[in-house]
Amino acid sequence: MMKLEEIAELLSGRIEGLIEKEITGVGKIETAGSSEITFISNPQYEKYFKTTNAGAIIISNEFELKTKRNDLSIIRVEDPYLSFLKLLEKFEEGKVNEQNGISEYCFTGENCELGENVYLGNYVSIGNNCTVGMNTKIYSNSTLESNTIVGNNCIIYPNVSIYKNCIIGNNVIIHSGTVIGSDGFGFAKQEDGTYKKIPQTGNVVIEDNVEIGSNCSIDRATLGETKICRGVKLDNQIQIAHNVFIDENTVIAAQVGIAGSTKIGKRCMIGGQSGLVGHITICDDVIIGASVGVPKSIDKPGIYTGYRARPLKETLRLEVGMQNIRKLEDRVKELEKKLSK
Amino acid sequence: MMKLEEIAELLSGRIEGLIEKEITGVGKIETAGSSEITFISNPQYEKYFKTTNAGAIIISNEFELKTKRNDLSIIRVEDPYLSFLKLLEKFEEGKVNEQNGISEYCFTGENCELGENVYLGNYVSIGNNCTVGMNTKIYSNSTLESNTIVGNNCIIYPNVSIYKNCIIGNNVIIHSGTVIGSDGFGFAKQEDGTYKKIPQTGNVVIEDNVEIGSNCSIDRATLGETKICRGVKLDNQIQIAHNVFIDENTVIAAQVGIAGSTKIGKRCMIGGQSGLVGHITICDDVIIGASVGVPKSIDKPGIYTGYRARPLKETLRLEVGMQNIRKLEDRVKELEKKLSK
Amino acid sequence: MMKLEEIAELLSGRIEGLIEKEITGVGKIETAGSSEITFISNPQYEKYFKTTNAGAIIISNEFELKTKRNDLSIIRVEDPYLSFLKLLEKFEEGKVNEQNGISEYCFTGENCELGENVYLGNYVSIGNNCTVGMNTKIYSNSTLESNTIVGNNCIIYPNVSIYKNCIIGNNVIIHSGTVIGSDGFGFAKQEDGTYKKIPQTGNVVIEDNVEIGSNCSIDRATLGETKICRGVKLDNQIQIAHNVFIDENTVIAAQVGIAGSTKIGKRCMIGGQSGLVGHITICDDVIIGASVGVPKSIDKPGIYTGYRARPLKETLRLEVGMQNIRKLEDRVKELEKKLSK
Repeated sequence: MMKLEEIAELLSGRIEGLIEKEITGVGKIETAGSSEITFISNPQYEKYFKTTNAGAIIISNEFELKTKRNDLSIIRVEDPYLSFLKLLEKFEEGKVNEQNGISEYCFTGENCELGENVYLGNYVSIGNNCTVGMNTKIYSNSTLESNTIVGNNCIIYPNVSIYKNCIIGNNVIIHSGTVIGSDGFGFAKQEDGTYKKIPQTGNVVIEDNVEIGSNCSIDRATLGETKICRGVKLDNQIQIAHNVFIDENTVIAAQVGIAGSTKIGKRCMIGGQSGLVGHITICDDVIIGASVGVPKSIDKPGIYTGYRARPLKETLRLEVGMQNIRKLEDRVKELEKKLSK
Repeated sequence: MMKLEEIAELLSGRIEGLIEKEITGVGKIETAGSSEITFISNPQYEKYFKTTNAGAIIISNEFELKTKRNDLSIIRVEDPYLSFLKLLEKFEEGKVNEQNGISEYCFTGENCELGENVYLGNYVSIGNNCTVGMNTKIYSNSTLESNTIVGNNCIIYPNVSIYKNCIIGNNVIIHSGTVIGSDGFGFAKQEDGTYKKIPQTGNVVIEDNVEIGSNCSIDRATLGETKICRGVKLDNQIQIAHNVFIDENTVIAAQVGIAGSTKIGKRCMIGGQSGLVGHITICDDVIIGASVGVPKSIDKPGIYTGYRARPLKETLRLEVGMQNIRKLEDRVKELEKKLSK
Repeated sequence: MMKLEEIAELLSGRIEGLIEKEITGVGKIETAGSSEITFISNPQYEKYFKTTNAGAIIISNEFELKTKRNDLSIIRVEDPYLSFLKLLEKFEEGKVNEQNGISEYCFTGENCELGENVYLGNYVSIGNNCTVGMNTKIYSNSTLESNTIVGNNCIIYPNVSIYKNCIIGNNVIIHSGTVIGSDGFGFAKQEDGTYKKIPQTGNVVIEDNVEIGSNCSIDRATLGETKICRGVKLDNQIQIAHNVFIDENTVIAAQVGIAGSTKIGKRCMIGGQSGLVGHITICDDVIIGASVGVPKSIDKPGIYTGYRARPLKETLRLEVGMQNIRKLEDRVKELEKKLSK
């Protein structure tokens, strides 16, 4: 619970029309209740100013009040969205995370090291020779196979599978259903048309501050490591094949697939459902749109889109061209008519 | 087991060539045995009439017998496919579902309410303050985090993860590997190029009569709720981002991705592998094909297809245009020749 | 550990510059240590010959030494990549797999048969009337529902779900998060716009020597079986709908979706993220590229690519055509100008 003045101070904001009030949380403008605070950042939400039931609202210094509301306290700030995020975080901090201690219904193998204040949920299974760093929480029904290392302050949600020998850094969050360290897809074709499995003897290394969504697959390397560097953020249902390398602070949206041995640079952004073939290199600061197929390396920063990745401008040109084909046909017909006369 | 007369009565059908027979189940026409009943609905299966080993067959009133079969009882009905479904259901009803009772190897937290006749499988983990309605079955190795509510007559298959505070209605089926309530993909970019997590404090609400396939991901809202309304059917491996809203009786095929805050109307149908960007609205009764990218809102019912969603007619026109480019080039060449003379 | 001479003998290779050395494993050329052996197959790795810290290297008979390395033993062979795979396998063989025995924290239902030397991990749940063949390993938190049969020498990794009545052959590997036997997506539309579930009463049959990646979904048949034949290899996150049939030795890359009742022939290869509609047939020896939509049956072997599957040549022709539209417009403009004079 926070007083309005405390909130204003936290946000370096200015109060208009103070009502003595305790704020218990943040809410969406359409549904917030009278003890909650809400905000307007996007102009399309301005219409709700008249009707919101919130007890207080964060608006920008420039926001023009067309309606007078005596029942609504106002805090003016420079950037309502950032202020709102700050406040959201403040209220979250206050919430006690109930997950503590080691369940009596979990299993830890031989020779494991558990840091201080580790939480292991029900039916967690940890193999031999594993290390779990302090404050890390592993939720129920997750499995860590032998020789796995997980750093400090990590959260591993229910039903996660981490195969043997993988290494997870500090402050890493892994959502449910995600699989780390499964075998890469490697087979050698035999003369009789059958395939022989190529042993996948490497591992997966995930550096600090990475977040991985639900139901992702990150395969172990054939030799060496599949590596996800510091600060990378992966959405849900992403497929990362063996020996892929993703450099720092790259963000990847849901359902993207990255084939074997491909390297992705720093600070890239990849849109949902895009696919990258194997053995290519994407340089730093590349933005790839949604549902884009990337068939070859990209060595210039910029925006790439289309069924086959092309620089944005080229894709747009192609699309306009396609739209014009029918008109072009008409023009050619016209010319043919004229000439035949 | 049913007698042929009972089946005919159930289906309001007419028996031809009755053989006194007990029917034990339904089968595909290619593989049904002599105590099973099969059906012909699609003309491409008519050829099997001569050879099927089934003991009885459901055909339409109009179906013309070209072969005489003394060993095959016939039931004529108006719609063989619907009759077959009715019968399939009838035989399923008779099967006893063996899943009953509370396993001694499951965990229920403090302050939970379990309705009558609940089944909890082995290694199910249920957090504090959860409610599970009557007749609901939760299979082995599934996890419900704290403050989750699940209604009556639900089936939650093995290895499902439901995060805290989520609400599931009645008659909901959730298949294995599905994750409900994982964090939305929300990060604020910092000046140093790293990303800061935006707390995802909302939940997921799933209304009555929804079915969700295996390995789906449905993220919790940043604020408020991600909502799947009554009667929605989701196939496997579908990604639903934070704050998405899917209205009643919409069906979505496998591997579709829906980005954050998008709203989908009632009775829509979305084909496999399609992707919808965030913050758009699809009106009621829209049909989207397979592998379609939807980059903006759709406000007219109808069929939309193509790499970028366009009304079906437009997509077809574009495709024909593309096919004709080479011919057009030839025509232009011809014109150029003529003119140069 | 192997002596260099033993390795040379195994590979039918020729030693140059023998240093008495015990080799402890294989490594990538960039990172191998002095007791490891590495290889050069791809010319783009030749540059590392000068700098590798490996103790020995496998190169082809033709490989030309531009640098002299006194500290690096050389084994010359015909095909360095195949030799390397052979060696990789040899070293893997030597590793003891620690997973043995039946955990005290797993559950086996009534009337199950477990073969000799079966491993069941922690919190594995096996229903009634199941059979698990000899040497098969089922890792922690996996579930087999009732009446499931798993053959000999299989590996089922953590958090796999296999529904009732499914049949798994010998030497099958199933990676974490995969779901086998979930209900097919079958609903009959009612007059009021709601959907009624069609019972999915069939099962899934997986033959010998199949490998299935992580987080795949293979639905049970409505009637009869969904079947994956001998030697098929499936990558991660693949969706296989009810009643699909995949014939022997076909390989499918990650994130492919195959809709209901589609049949795929022998020795096909399907690239990542491709999608096949339902009720079609793909003949033997078809290669489908990545991100290809296949809207109808294919009855000729060959390579198919593009947003809508077309023979490779046709797709290339279309693409060149599209690229030329703008030029074509210019040529038409030119003609129009000339004619208007």
